[in-house]
Amino acid sequence: MTRTVVGRGGLDPEASWLAAGLDHLAGIVDPDLPGWSRVGFSEQDVAGRAWVAAQMREAGLETHVDAVGTVIGVLPGSSPSAPAIVVGSHSDTVPGGGRFDGVVGVLGAIEVARALRRSGTRLTHELRVVDFANEEGNPQGVKLVGSRAIAGGLGPDLLGATDDTGTTLADLIAGAGHDPAAVASCRWRPGEVAAYLELHVEQGPVLEQQGASIGVVTRVCGISTFVLDVHGRRDHAGTMPMDRRSDAMCCAADAVLAVQRIAAAGADTVGTVGALTTTSPLTNTISEQARLTGEFRSPRLDVLRELQRQYAEAVAQADARHRTTSDLTWGHTDPPTVLDAALSDVVAGSAAAVGHDAVRLYSGATHDSVEMARLGPAAMVFVPSRDGRSHCPQEWTDLDDVEHGVRVLLQAVLDVDALPAGAGRPG
Amino acid sequence: MTRTVVGRGGLDPEASWLAAGLDHLAGIVDPDLPGWSRVGFSEQDVAGRAWVAAQMREAGLETHVDAVGTVIGVLPGSSPSAPAIVVGSHSDTVPGGGRFDGVVGVLGAIEVARALRRSGTRLTHELRVVDFANEEGNPQGVKLVGSRAIAGGLGPDLLGATDDTGTTLADLIAGAGHDPAAVASCRWRPGEVAAYLELHVEQGPVLEQQGASIGVVTRVCGISTFVLDVHGRRDHAGTMPMDRRSDAMCCAADAVLAVQRIAAAGADTVGTVGALTTTSPLTNTISEQARLTGEFRSPRLDVLRELQRQYAEAVAQADARHRTTSDLTWGHTDPPTVLDAALSDVVAGSAAAVGHDAVRLYSGATHDSVEMARLGPAAMVFVPSRDGRSHCPQEWTDLDDVEHGVRVLLQAVLDVDALPAGAGRPG
Repeated sequence: MTRTVVGRGGLDPEASWLAAGLDHLAGIVDPDLPGWSRVGFSEQDVAGRAWVAAQMREAGLETHVDAVGTVIGVLPGSSPSAPAIVVGSHSDTVPGGGRFDGVVGVLGAIEVARALRRSGTRLTHELRVVDFANEEGNPQGVKLVGSRAIAGGLGPDLLGATDDTGTTLADLIAGAGHDPAAVASCRWRPGEVAAYLELHVEQGPVLEQQGASIGVVTRVCGISTFVLDVHGRRDHAGTMPMDRRSDAMCCAADAVLAVQRIAAAGADTVGTVGALTTTSPLTNTISEQARLTGEFRSPRLDVLRELQRQYAEAVAQADARHRTTSDLTWGHTDPPTVLDAALSDVVAGSAAAVGHDAVRLYSGATHDSVEMARLGPAAMVFVPSRDGRSHCPQEWTDLDDVEHGVRVLLQAVLDVDALPAGAGRPG
Repeated sequence: MTRTVVGRGGLDPEASWLAAGLDHLAGIVDPDLPGWSRVGFSEQDVAGRAWVAAQMREAGLETHVDAVGTVIGVLPGSSPSAPAIVVGSHSDTVPGGGRFDGVVGVLGAIEVARALRRSGTRLTHELRVVDFANEEGNPQGVKLVGSRAIAGGLGPDLLGATDDTGTTLADLIAGAGHDPAAVASCRWRPGEVAAYLELHVEQGPVLEQQGASIGVVTRVCGISTFVLDVHGRRDHAGTMPMDRRSDAMCCAADAVLAVQRIAAAGADTVGTVGALTTTSPLTNTISEQARLTGEFRSPRLDVLRELQRQYAEAVAQADARHRTTSDLTWGHTDPPTVLDAALSDVVAGSAAAVGHDAVRLYSGATHDSVEMARLGPAAMVFVPSRDGRSHCPQEWTDLDDVEHGVRVLLQAVLDVDALPAGAGRPG
């Protein structure tokens, strides 16, 4: 069997359509937030997904929206019994986010289907194009909502999670016109997925630093979140000498710098503090209580555990220095996900076939691929982010790089489709 | 002329009345706040002052309330042309405060008048007993409201200061039933005050550490407040390597510890951070902006200036370390107030007359005496605070110490009254 190669016989992505799609979604944004914001389940998110669904239909895909809002378009294959090759990403954004995170993978997946149909190329496998609901998470603290529902992990505990005002995730989803009570209907069967392929912007500086256009992701980070509650002593800020204070704010500041110090000492580890709040915000009173929220990320679970150990030690030292007592509470630890090595090799070969030496790299951001990896082999294609920036209005990927990524994605779909069934299938 | 001495001829404060007064005011507190809270211009503050005014009337004082809520009771002297000896403090508290801060001085001043009347002792000077409005300040950021109005410093700028909701200080005062538009009527004339004497709890640990019952205050602290705005770079918290971040939260934490380090290195200097806020409180995004509010206090203006210089330098170093840029804005600097040396010597002599070696000490807390010092010689008597604690529910001063303080205050009133007019008058 001759290999079908992108760029021959009219089989090529249409850069102008990708550019128009990026522009169109950049016009459906919340005017009250900075950057390009389509926050999950917002009015703009619903409008953006409606446009995405229309594009899928126009591309000839059988399109439906599942019970939590994930948009799914199907291009049937020639073999009805073959499992699906799934391509996709998400079109929601963080508040104040950029134009590329998620969107590139959704538009790229649709363009793969469009290019196949334009060129009259028929796959053996079904091609399933997906725009996963609310990958970026919500004030209820649940990320990867759509892919989690598909993989069966969106249970009553997560649907019942509340934000500061008591609104549950189920309320949030229902408010956007979906049916969270029917979440079980979102679930895909094991064996339904031949392979999951996701194109995404890197959101970090590695590809740019190495002058590379294409990355293939080896692992996705593990994340360990924490809450630190510091208990000090409330005293008069004018009369209590410095050496007799138990200032919760000072211990918390020490604990912020400890996150930075410990994370910086590790390889591929990062650590970030979100908020530092105190119960006595006036300068004339020494802080009795302070609360810190933070996280560590690492490609390795044993390293995450070691970061936790070191951080607990640093907090104890900060307590000793500031005469405070702290409660350090670790949240759920998301272990790192190793993506499928065989499938990643196929994708690297696909990149080579269209002229790119793929750089193997680790993802410090989490992705829908983590959930999809529960259903079958998963791999990711990264394209460069200018200056490594993401989750900000300055996020940027050149259109040439978007096009390169879509060409690699298309070639990978063709290459996976051509793999002999059973033996040789990545897994 | 024979010196009138407290403890002879039935001239003695009534400890049981002081204890009952402390208990009574401890019952007029906001049930929604911790500790013993009568926050300025609140329902409880108004009720507390009404009780104070009733006690003044019962003590035989001609009592009125001025246009901003200060309660003033007058015991006429034998010489109508002699200026007044003023005694007093405040009955409002910080939110979550204690039972003694301010209250001891108000009850002590009333008890001085009561003791004089009980024993039939007539002063030459008028005795003016004062419960100053809202010494502790308000969300509009103005302290010493009542004494400032009396000294002529409560101008349109301060009355127009707003809280977070846009409510002005004038609105706040009017809401408690007073008439801030008539603030000019609060003002006392220069020459009207022979001496100002304030009894107060120390709120610090010096007297307790030295085993002393009575302190005489040499100076009241100067205060320099600041706002620090740190500008970092918003980036993805998973993908941006630690060594390429501009994390505003980390620079702000560094700046918190710099306040502590710089203040701890000085003599009698303190420094405190109130709040640290960020515009991106989620852990998955690096902080773009952080804001810190803080203050330094010192007995010396040149030292305050030096602390400001050192802090600006420390902030620049923190910016360099964290690749951030910060704007450091100093608020109004309240210079330290030197209390009247001659009057303080008189008060120390009064303490000795009733059996106490007075410790001379500096006050790191500010007081109405700072404003009253603009109208005439001012001095302060301190009594010990257990464990140096104040502005917290644990604030405590033993009743014996309260009684000692009132005896010294009464003796000081008698001694100032006996000073020859003109020559010898402290000033």
